[in-house]
Amino acid sequence: MPPLSGADPVSFPPVEAGLFRDAMARLGAAVNIITTDGPGGRAGFAATAVCSVTDTPPTLLVCLNRASSVVGAFTANPHLCVNTLSAGHRDLSSLFGGKTPMAERFAAAQWHAGLTGVPVLADSLVAFECRLSHSVEIGTHRVLFCEVLAIAGGGAEEALIYFGRRYHTAAALG
Amino acid sequence: MPPLSGADPVSFPPVEAGLFRDAMARLGAAVNIITTDGPGGRAGFAATAVCSVTDTPPTLLVCLNRASSVVGAFTANPHLCVNTLSAGHRDLSSLFGGKTPMAERFAAAQWHAGLTGVPVLADSLVAFECRLSHSVEIGTHRVLFCEVLAIAGGGAEEALIYFGRRYHTAAALG
Repeated sequence: MPPLSGADPVSFPPVEAGLFRDAMARLGAAVNIITTDGPGGRAGFAATAVCSVTDTPPTLLVCLNRASSVVGAFTANPHLCVNTLSAGHRDLSSLFGGKTPMAERFAAAQWHAGLTGVPVLADSLVAFECRLSHSVEIGTHRVLFCEVLAIAGGGAEEALIYFGRRYHTAAALG
Repeated sequence: MPPLSGADPVSFPPVEAGLFRDAMARLGAAVNIITTDGPGGRAGFAATAVCSVTDTPPTLLVCLNRASSVVGAFTANPHLCVNTLSAGHRDLSSLFGGKTPMAERFAAAQWHAGLTGVPVLADSLVAFECRLSHSVEIGTHRVLFCEVLAIAGGGAEEALIYFGRRYHTAAALG
């Protein structure tokens, strides 16, 4: 008989991918447009899988599907910008989350070039201009660890939140 | 003269930690209580730095401060549970985000033992029972990559969202 392995002493039937996605849809999250520009070209995509990692050094992370059409640009370019969306950006989010050509996506909003040349959304809720510092491949995705080089803040106050596969805003409790 | 390095051609003054935290507070996020139990003891903490990574295999991530009092338990125990909170859990979130002793935190809600023995919040919005599959240290924090073994769903429908350092709920847009 083989020895007991160091793996789980309890065995579980695998969690089906669709069930996992349905459950993750119940984790509300801010919507962001992640942009880049440089030798690999200009690109951008909508993402909710973004979170703060540490303030020393200031670092956030972004999860990117390795099969996405934007992977080439985000691999070749050293800089990126996390543009957090306000409630007024619902249509922009849909454009950057679909199959729309890049030029058409960017034409739908006002951008300025950040200090590193990446597109910064003019009226974002907040924007983090970053340098890719490290990445890890996990299954189908790449986790990009991004050191924050500069922060820009728009005037918007209402957050765009994706929850239950629908757009929401954050409403103050009591 | 030294050769040009491969690092940033542009040099930036460092982003001050407080400014970074103020900016990250504008990234709205679901609130979760991360729990564990096992040889390292029972522990739990509130976290917004949680996101989906991939559905193949079903994996999420959680960021944990390495200076936190719960690190020992989360290092020794192989399993954990991400309990996503509903709007009714505001007080519970504050308890698990403060300095309250563990027994008092857990006494404030109903839990059941999951398949791996971890505490699962009875009325969570959704709960992900996980096995720690991989971790990465980034600055002051450890990023825990967690394979999802089982999913439990409560009946609650209103999400608890932390945004601008205040509790919110997600309100449907138009």
